[in-house]
Amino acid sequence: MTDDLKSHIDEAMTLAAAHLGRGRVADYIPALAKVDPNKLGFALALPDGTVHTSGDADESFSIQSVSKVFTLALALRRVGSSLWDSVGREPSGSAFNSIVQLENEQGIPRNPLINAGAIATTDRLIDGRSGDATIDEIVDFMRARAGDDSIGIDFDVAFSESETGARNRSLAHFMDAFGNLTHPVEPVVGVYFRQCAIAMSCRQLARAGLFLAMEGRDPLTGEQLVEPHRARRINAIMMLCGHYDNSGEFAFRVGLPGKSGVGGGILCIAPGQGSIAVWSPGLNEAGTSLAGAVALEHFAYAAGWSVFD
Amino acid sequence: MTDDLKSHIDEAMTLAAAHLGRGRVADYIPALAKVDPNKLGFALALPDGTVHTSGDADESFSIQSVSKVFTLALALRRVGSSLWDSVGREPSGSAFNSIVQLENEQGIPRNPLINAGAIATTDRLIDGRSGDATIDEIVDFMRARAGDDSIGIDFDVAFSESETGARNRSLAHFMDAFGNLTHPVEPVVGVYFRQCAIAMSCRQLARAGLFLAMEGRDPLTGEQLVEPHRARRINAIMMLCGHYDNSGEFAFRVGLPGKSGVGGGILCIAPGQGSIAVWSPGLNEAGTSLAGAVALEHFAYAAGWSVFD
Amino acid sequence: MTDDLKSHIDEAMTLAAAHLGRGRVADYIPALAKVDPNKLGFALALPDGTVHTSGDADESFSIQSVSKVFTLALALRRVGSSLWDSVGREPSGSAFNSIVQLENEQGIPRNPLINAGAIATTDRLIDGRSGDATIDEIVDFMRARAGDDSIGIDFDVAFSESETGARNRSLAHFMDAFGNLTHPVEPVVGVYFRQCAIAMSCRQLARAGLFLAMEGRDPLTGEQLVEPHRARRINAIMMLCGHYDNSGEFAFRVGLPGKSGVGGGILCIAPGQGSIAVWSPGLNEAGTSLAGAVALEHFAYAAGWSVFD
Amino acid sequence: MTDDLKSHIDEAMTLAAAHLGRGRVADYIPALAKVDPNKLGFALALPDGTVHTSGDADESFSIQSVSKVFTLALALRRVGSSLWDSVGREPSGSAFNSIVQLENEQGIPRNPLINAGAIATTDRLIDGRSGDATIDEIVDFMRARAGDDSIGIDFDVAFSESETGARNRSLAHFMDAFGNLTHPVEPVVGVYFRQCAIAMSCRQLARAGLFLAMEGRDPLTGEQLVEPHRARRINAIMMLCGHYDNSGEFAFRVGLPGKSGVGGGILCIAPGQGSIAVWSPGLNEAGTSLAGAVALEHFAYAAGWSVFD
Repeated sequence: MTDDLKSHIDEAMTLAAAHLGRGRVADYIPALAKVDPNKLGFALALPDGTVHTSGDADESFSIQSVSKVFTLALALRRVGSSLWDSVGREPSGSAFNSIVQLENEQGIPRNPLINAGAIATTDRLIDGRSGDATIDEIVDFMRARAGDDSIGIDFDVAFSESETGARNRSLAHFMDAFGNLTHPVEPVVGVYFRQCAIAMSCRQLARAGLFLAMEGRDPLTGEQLVEPHRARRINAIMMLCGHYDNSGEFAFRVGLPGKSGVGGGILCIAPGQGSIAVWSPGLNEAGTSLAGAVALEHFAYAAGWSVFD
Repeated sequence: MTDDLKSHIDEAMTLAAAHLGRGRVADYIPALAKVDPNKLGFALALPDGTVHTSGDADESFSIQSVSKVFTLALALRRVGSSLWDSVGREPSGSAFNSIVQLENEQGIPRNPLINAGAIATTDRLIDGRSGDATIDEIVDFMRARAGDDSIGIDFDVAFSESETGARNRSLAHFMDAFGNLTHPVEPVVGVYFRQCAIAMSCRQLARAGLFLAMEGRDPLTGEQLVEPHRARRINAIMMLCGHYDNSGEFAFRVGLPGKSGVGGGILCIAPGQGSIAVWSPGLNEAGTSLAGAVALEHFAYAAGWSVFD
Repeated sequence: MTDDLKSHIDEAMTLAAAHLGRGRVADYIPALAKVDPNKLGFALALPDGTVHTSGDADESFSIQSVSKVFTLALALRRVGSSLWDSVGREPSGSAFNSIVQLENEQGIPRNPLINAGAIATTDRLIDGRSGDATIDEIVDFMRARAGDDSIGIDFDVAFSESETGARNRSLAHFMDAFGNLTHPVEPVVGVYFRQCAIAMSCRQLARAGLFLAMEGRDPLTGEQLVEPHRARRINAIMMLCGHYDNSGEFAFRVGLPGKSGVGGGILCIAPGQGSIAVWSPGLNEAGTSLAGAVALEHFAYAAGWSVFD
Repeated sequence: MTDDLKSHIDEAMTLAAAHLGRGRVADYIPALAKVDPNKLGFALALPDGTVHTSGDADESFSIQSVSKVFTLALALRRVGSSLWDSVGREPSGSAFNSIVQLENEQGIPRNPLINAGAIATTDRLIDGRSGDATIDEIVDFMRARAGDDSIGIDFDVAFSESETGARNRSLAHFMDAFGNLTHPVEPVVGVYFRQCAIAMSCRQLARAGLFLAMEGRDPLTGEQLVEPHRARRINAIMMLCGHYDNSGEFAFRVGLPGKSGVGGGILCIAPGQGSIAVWSPGLNEAGTSLAGAVALEHFAYAAGWSVFD
């Protein structure tokens, strides 16, 4: 079976490689714009600790919005279900940074995987601590999950995120206007910009997400990181909301919970089976890695891992 | 294991029964308003043909929007992927009958499980035939799936749907204005109103949905009704869009693809395991059966059938 | 002074003629699409009955939405202030046929000069009569105002309006769904399509609008057609809402109440001074006659008739 | 005639006084919330320099959004028509602080009299200067117009505005995200919060607005403050957009260009005739002074000053 998985990965990568060069690299900050669009990496982490990789799976990239899944898990662990007073769990039906919904729904973001919702989640995760203490917790969690202390923040990216962060500041002030922010705007977006700027490889990211495939338990350390029902629900939210206004398409094609980032990374969870990270910087119109999604579609199909059959 | 399932059903029904009386029975037409709010039925159809039932599982109710799943399957079978030229497959982020999205997106409904999308799907299913021929195909399909020729349309309901159908007519004319209707409005909504008025019991409905849990093949007749990838994708669409603006909540709690109707019925697919139909007329604010969703949440949890762990 | 007005008209027409050929002729129905884009007419009706004309001022054109001003006056006369239960009087901030506002505001159109509001106004004007009796009243009113019994409906246009009227039917059904239509959809839109298809010349139209410049009284027949405060308020509504999402621009440039139609006509009221009709089929992006608005801007400026200084 | 005007004022004030106690005093900051709701002041400034007052016409109040008219005039004077690259001139069709329109229209506010538009206008007025220099220019202009150097900023109000200014900061960052802000957010909103906190009496405010009734020329100092066509156009914008989503109603009832503020003040321009300021803190649902609007409606009717007849 491991041999099968390997051949499925090879096949998926071959099919995905044909899509390299299509898609558009995110260019709103220089550090992202200069990434080579022909990169393509794949890593599959299995419950026994083995990681199968292909392509540029050991090269670090900016995880961007993939970080939202981890801060969600950490916030749920820290403040429990009260998080849902600040943020909903429905698909948004609009772009990742839309403010319309926020106005219609009185400052409560639709879900934790769009920008406004992730900012609200980060705000709750801070929970009275300093921004530095909070970002440290996030980075430490990533290192522990990946078993790799070299993981860190790309401060060049973080600085640029902050410099160009007018839209996210607008979202934060907007929620603040509705009383849905418990800390001042700057420290909150300060953590947010840094969590988005964490740099990881596919290998590290696949490994870090494994607990979500295993009912909240890290199979390698044995730690129960979040309760089983929380892991299940995080997966549900990823399935419905993980790719902004492209979530339906992703569910339709891949059939697995996932979260994409504009750095070109996608984390994909196969419940009970394993955790997959892909990376290719060229994005489709909705901001999801184009070749990455192709790789996941073919792999999930070949492995028969879609949750829908 | 069958004994386990039975006890899970019993337990789920007990917990659900505590919620009877909450929720609001749909009252926009008299035939629905007069239904006893304390009804509660449950049926689980397994691949081997056995059906486990509980409560009012043999009483007919108006399946309403649950019908959208079946017309979607029939339309895909008839016109193939060209259906997706007329209708999208993303969650809507708004109410079941919203017209705002339609205006923003030039007459293309977001998905086939909101009213506008179901009307567009019905239009494509008609495919040049008469309305009567089309509705006959739908009813015949239900009868064949359920193995029960007594299934039919409640014409009292159908007539009332048409009488109060101004909003749906508006949606149809609106799509027509954008060139996204291939037949005149009245025959299209005529089929739509009748498909919503089909009356079935939980037993019949669970049985009818079984092919979606079995990769598109009816395990009892052996017929491949839709291709495996189509069945998988219908399930994906149900998961993301099956309960209007309550789909996230349903995925979060139940973790299975499903489709609800304002008659109080919910069809729920557990891929590879079976098909479940519940019925209880009291609805939550989003129009999903309140006690029905509770029953499904507890059953899916007890059976470990959530696709997310 | 009359000589001054004549020279102002000449000057305005010269300036406007330079814009002929720009703009786009409405082409959603053949009868409008085939109109010569280089037509340009101007008529100024004064309280003493004299009419100064220039260019193609005696050629009939389809008055289209200019008719909304007259049905508004007739409806106010017939049902009084109760009309305002069915329709608001605020600018819409969106396109002439938008349905978004209607959904947000529960089926009450923003004002009587957008399509939905004009349909609701026509519905109230019908007031239990037949569609034919209602359209007869409208046409008779136009004839009496213009002192010209040759005015009539272009049935070729009316038929085409109906054939392509899906959007307007959608608006009507939508209002019906909210209980804001007192007659069935078809007779209401039947009157609406015909009122839009009335054909008049600039001379006739300027003359017909004169009562609005004279506190509701037709200075030639001596009849008080609507009460003074009603005339004043119709002018206010024209100023704020007369050109869809171009009303601010028109007020900014011309400074007079006006109503434009996609046939290229504009009726413009100079309170206490006179009534102006211009016609040129090339439209700007918001559906207002491009050269016509230029003529009005220059004439109003030269005559010093802007209400804003 | 002056005697007539006096009796019209008396009559209007009597009718308005009957509405005292209705309406709701703005309470989002303490300094506004504690204002006596029964205050009612009226001042009419005539071209010859006489000012007729009634009631609490010499008591200072927070002019709030009435300031937007003056910064508009100053910005047009400073940067000319290029202002219109940053802000539109159409009614918004939505609330004073809505962000939806901003998203739909790519960061360009609809007009200079809604919050976003006023912030953009202030940004352009700053034009590279310090915030202090800019607010000094605004205050100096008010003093010069009113002929009263005692006019100043209520810093208690300004501070509270800033403290509760999350929504306005959100709007500013949002425009910044679209590149429609030429200075950093804080200095811009710093000027904006202070201009809103200018305190003036009806007498001062009526006198200050007089140039707008006189084709841009201050009749007392003889200065041409803005060109005639600019004054005319500012009046047009006030007529169409001066009262947020209540502008249609104000035009319908009063028939004069005006601008209201949540402090309860309204400035109203009667072109060629004079300038009126009213003040009463109780607001209607749209944020316009309730009794103030009643006074204006009756005065404008009695004086025959509506521009619409």
